[in-house]
Amino acid sequence: MRLDIDNLPRTIDLVRATPDMAPIPEGDLVLRIIDQTLLPYEEKYLFITDWRDAIEAIKVLRVRGAPAIGVAGAAAVALAAVEARSKTLSGELDANSAADIENFRTFMDEAAEQIATARPTAVNLQHMVDVAMQLVAEELATGDGLDVVVDRLYELTKQLIVEDENSNRAMGEFGAALLKPGSRVLTHCNAGSLATAFYGTALGVIYAAAEAGKIEMVYADETRPLCQGARLTAFELAKASIPVTLICDDMAASVMAQGLVDAVCVGADRIAANGDTANKIGTLGVAILASHFGIPFYVVAPTTTVDLNAKDARDIPIEERAAAEVQDPPVEGVAVYNPAFDVTPAELITAIITERGIAEPAEIAALV
Amino acid sequence: MRLDIDNLPRTIDLVRATPDMAPIPEGDLVLRIIDQTLLPYEEKYLFITDWRDAIEAIKVLRVRGAPAIGVAGAAAVALAAVEARSKTLSGELDANSAADIENFRTFMDEAAEQIATARPTAVNLQHMVDVAMQLVAEELATGDGLDVVVDRLYELTKQLIVEDENSNRAMGEFGAALLKPGSRVLTHCNAGSLATAFYGTALGVIYAAAEAGKIEMVYADETRPLCQGARLTAFELAKASIPVTLICDDMAASVMAQGLVDAVCVGADRIAANGDTANKIGTLGVAILASHFGIPFYVVAPTTTVDLNAKDARDIPIEERAAAEVQDPPVEGVAVYNPAFDVTPAELITAIITERGIAEPAEIAALV
Repeated sequence: MRLDIDNLPRTIDLVRATPDMAPIPEGDLVLRIIDQTLLPYEEKYLFITDWRDAIEAIKVLRVRGAPAIGVAGAAAVALAAVEARSKTLSGELDANSAADIENFRTFMDEAAEQIATARPTAVNLQHMVDVAMQLVAEELATGDGLDVVVDRLYELTKQLIVEDENSNRAMGEFGAALLKPGSRVLTHCNAGSLATAFYGTALGVIYAAAEAGKIEMVYADETRPLCQGARLTAFELAKASIPVTLICDDMAASVMAQGLVDAVCVGADRIAANGDTANKIGTLGVAILASHFGIPFYVVAPTTTVDLNAKDARDIPIEERAAAEVQDPPVEGVAVYNPAFDVTPAELITAIITERGIAEPAEIAALV
Repeated sequence: MRLDIDNLPRTIDLVRATPDMAPIPEGDLVLRIIDQTLLPYEEKYLFITDWRDAIEAIKVLRVRGAPAIGVAGAAAVALAAVEARSKTLSGELDANSAADIENFRTFMDEAAEQIATARPTAVNLQHMVDVAMQLVAEELATGDGLDVVVDRLYELTKQLIVEDENSNRAMGEFGAALLKPGSRVLTHCNAGSLATAFYGTALGVIYAAAEAGKIEMVYADETRPLCQGARLTAFELAKASIPVTLICDDMAASVMAQGLVDAVCVGADRIAANGDTANKIGTLGVAILASHFGIPFYVVAPTTTVDLNAKDARDIPIEERAAAEVQDPPVEGVAVYNPAFDVTPAELITAIITERGIAEPAEIAALV
């Protein structure tokens, strides 16, 4: 099997504008994302300079996946800092004035709050915004000025992108070692290159296993209502020349019953201290099916996804999204329930694969 | 709760053309169905006079549901007999000629074969075509002529429609007795009035329970890829003024985990002698989830759905349908698997509710 990992799109980057990005002034900070709402039929990149547009992109899932929206959160903080700095340059803020620095802080706090709460379930978003805002506080304390704050936020985001890819490749190696040659792996939603800076978590394991010649087939659940499996996972696996079969979510049991699945790999949006794992709606069902059929069920996620403040499932907020995602136009007299995530209890998870190694779910806190 | 059962559309009927059906000549046999591919947004009735159009309607699911396509099969045989008779009238066949009767038989045999195999999984289609063809054989033997054959087929179809509704109402009473007041019931696909002549099997239980004031909420799985749950079940429950919440298939586990489901009711396309039950793809997954959460899982189907020739799951053919139903347009490099049915093993079924009473799955043969 010839793999084309390099064919995978780069999901997210923070760059300085080049001339071809005009009318964006050369050198300005630009959040560059592939618009995932248009995949698989159109590969379009967006160039975002306003942090409010970054929030919109997170809310409507132009960029999605816990690790990717973590990076997007840090990048959005950097864009907010640029805006705050521009107010200084135009005279609204004076970098040497304590009052203006306080205004800068207030602006940043308000922006950060809006960015961090763009979506509630993935802990990475809040976490990375916190990391970025911690950096803002430290840099402001040095008195080196706002240019330095912006530069540091830019460097932080770049570093997070590199770390995320490295972390994914490490998870890939750990996870691939668990799969036997000829593996047929089922996955739900998209925990791939498109959900991260590059390479992916659950799909990172599949890429690493494929590079080791171990993957015979990947079954991709379409993952209603937004079809991240059909639109994103199937797309990126095909891009990488890995055999992929798309199924509807309600076909997973049939495929497992036929003995066609050797392992399940999924990502995670938040892992509680006891190993309970929130991930895309439908993951719980897949875990129960895997348990029923005796198929190993692996969660693949960086340790930044673990939230030690969440003791168990009950401490994880579950985002509910609009009815129109499920049925549009609505049908009179029909209610719609559209939770975006569910929580898989630790006991249904065979192992959690992180960049630091593999843990029993109940022992995950030891890796953090 | 005020119920509007009479509001439900009549799925299927075989009628003599009335003047408002012009250009169909008055008095001709007409298969009248509601085109289910257009629901819930358009309620359009089709008037079918050619048995080949009846086959097309079955194949593309304008009419669907095991009991309804059973009736459609008998009606299609009646339409075929009309065509064969018209050849007689035009001189192609002579009703008094043994050779021509043999030609009639041959024509009918070929038509019946095509009708019976329009879809492979539901046993009702083959069964009702067999019943109709048995009648053809008996009537031809009497020598009363082809008009009588057509009349008998018309009467048979009308009788099947009445019996189906009566049978559904009987199942409804048996099933409703199993549900406790305040029940929240989950169902998959559509085993409702639209899947039968009227009232429904699984939804018949819900209608009867609702009439007894026992239904608090129905959760309707959307049932990908063709969304019979979203388009048909949600639609007809709303028509009947029964509270219904639409969910995606991958949300059923979450809803069950939250304690929101007291029972599951589904229909069946074929029940093997050992109680293994083929039904719409996704039913197996729901059964495994129900078992995991300790929720009773009821199959509701007439005894005509039981196929004693099928010993167990392995004897039930599973229809595979086109990839385009799952993803259209296709994505390069992405295979699609689209089985239309799965088989739930008897041990995951709490009880099978028939028009003759309630059976342990393993004891279903005793009711046939």
